[in-house]
Amino acid sequence: MKIIIDAMGGDNAPEEIVKGACLAAKEFGVHIVLVGRENEIERYLDKDADVSIVNAEEVVTMDDDPTTAMKHKKDASMTVALRLLANGEGDAMISAGSTGALLVQATLIVKRIRGVRRAALAPIMPTANGGALLIDSGANADCSPEYLQQFALMGASYTKLALGLENPRIGLLNNGTEEHKGGELQQKTYQLLKAAHEKGMINFVGNIEGRDVVFGGADVIVTDGFSGNILLKTVEGVAMFFTKELKGIFMKNIKTKLAALLVKDGIRNFKKKMDYNETGGAPLLGISKPVIKAHGSSKAYALRSAVKQAIDYVNANSIEEITRNLKEITASEDVSNAKL
Amino acid sequence: MKIIIDAMGGDNAPEEIVKGACLAAKEFGVHIVLVGRENEIERYLDKDADVSIVNAEEVVTMDDDPTTAMKHKKDASMTVALRLLANGEGDAMISAGSTGALLVQATLIVKRIRGVRRAALAPIMPTANGGALLIDSGANADCSPEYLQQFALMGASYTKLALGLENPRIGLLNNGTEEHKGGELQQKTYQLLKAAHEKGMINFVGNIEGRDVVFGGADVIVTDGFSGNILLKTVEGVAMFFTKELKGIFMKNIKTKLAALLVKDGIRNFKKKMDYNETGGAPLLGISKPVIKAHGSSKAYALRSAVKQAIDYVNANSIEEITRNLKEITASEDVSNAKL
Repeated sequence: MKIIIDAMGGDNAPEEIVKGACLAAKEFGVHIVLVGRENEIERYLDKDADVSIVNAEEVVTMDDDPTTAMKHKKDASMTVALRLLANGEGDAMISAGSTGALLVQATLIVKRIRGVRRAALAPIMPTANGGALLIDSGANADCSPEYLQQFALMGASYTKLALGLENPRIGLLNNGTEEHKGGELQQKTYQLLKAAHEKGMINFVGNIEGRDVVFGGADVIVTDGFSGNILLKTVEGVAMFFTKELKGIFMKNIKTKLAALLVKDGIRNFKKKMDYNETGGAPLLGISKPVIKAHGSSKAYALRSAVKQAIDYVNANSIEEITRNLKEITASEDVSNAKL
Repeated sequence: MKIIIDAMGGDNAPEEIVKGACLAAKEFGVHIVLVGRENEIERYLDKDADVSIVNAEEVVTMDDDPTTAMKHKKDASMTVALRLLANGEGDAMISAGSTGALLVQATLIVKRIRGVRRAALAPIMPTANGGALLIDSGANADCSPEYLQQFALMGASYTKLALGLENPRIGLLNNGTEEHKGGELQQKTYQLLKAAHEKGMINFVGNIEGRDVVFGGADVIVTDGFSGNILLKTVEGVAMFFTKELKGIFMKNIKTKLAALLVKDGIRNFKKKMDYNETGGAPLLGISKPVIKAHGSSKAYALRSAVKQAIDYVNANSIEEITRNLKEITASEDVSNAKL
């Protein structure tokens, strides 16, 4: 298997990206293609890792406009890496660079799966029972019920095949659990998801509130990118805030510092549970080949986890199942429309 | 001053509501009118408190449809209490009953301020620096930019006059801080808030992300009721989850229980900071007289805090300022439309 990595994207590129790529190549026995400035990449290479370099002189930065970066920087590492993927010179692509640019360029260069209206960014968010796939977490602020229906199908296939969940529970993010809750978007989407459930295509468990998301009430949280983003960043914010307050409580004086020592194992385990570095990155579901957005602040170990995720994604063939499911649901809708 | 209270609404009614009302009457020197089943209320009365009772035999429950409860239960405590307020037989009204029913009935019986398109539910959510007013937290799932502009004006007047903030910072909940962020709703609202800021009507600090809300980046968070509800319930969920995990860490064995003892003061202070009981309830901003929704699980002390809040609300005359501001912004929009 060949994994293509944008070596220049992210806050800690290229050093941590290259180091993580080398770790992964050795641990998982895959070949890695690093794309970026050859002379900078070589500095951090582990000579024993099965890695090759494709030179690209430019870098898409956070200051570039996502929609026009491709036009102005034709030789950017992200762009070249996606072109390699599109041309079949690798099985998956990973970047820790600008999310917006990656979405635009993956859509234009690698293309969406036939029939998919919008690609979505689907990270795993930490929950009480391990984590849930959040789709969409911010790629599409304005969504239609049909987009959300597709997000549900894509999320179901991905968690089933790539993450190994047997019968993933699909929940619709809403402001209450009753069927009539939410705005027009949620009410219409509810009916579409209910119909897909009745056809046996997904395991729809109904509406889910912000509170229950945290406690693990569903394995896939379906929502528009605006609300998904609010959800994700609020969880991050409260977690950061609590951690900070807790630190203050424990660091106050000798007595409290002793307390910190006495519970340090418990705190460490809890921190690990909440750690993004273990889960890797977020797949861009709906793109016709595996593309993974790694966290912008990824260090070597997080990048290594993103490679592991890319390998699972490639092995899962979930893109094939998504394609099949979309065809089926579109066909059955054509039939029901014809009946009217 | 006379405060009217729905004695039968909420999980702990009438006992805790009556007890809280009596506490408040004595502490703040106001007269309280309790509305509900006289024989039940009398059981918990403090004879030294300045309290009177208006009998009402029925109760609006969580099972009643908010939109039709008024038709089916004409003698419900909530309905009678709102009618008293509308007739000028009190200065403010408080209920811990069904939020939906209270919104519908307050709108129909007490009416909205002239020019206000939608009333909004505006609780204080706990943040790192004390709290922020969240408007709307769930009354209106689908909103227009104009509704959100009105929410901003109402939130500004309320926090300034009733909560005593000098120059409240108004933030628009969004999925990024840049001006172009969000969906159509947020982009259009941004321009309206910017215009109101330039006229000196509000102190608009721009877009605010979920993360920064928690850290106290704004005093008033303007949003549609759907996203507001996601935000609020997610904060609640993560807080509950952390508390539960922390308890688990401290309760594990003798060593960790000792640690709990050593930090108990710090934990207690932190808990108090996050406590809803201190802040009272959520005003229904946009209604032409002060109506406060107390938390459904309110005990006596929380109800007492809601009375304190009602008194501040009455004294603030913020409804007058809202009326004036709305007139001004409508007039200036008429002028600019006329120019086109």
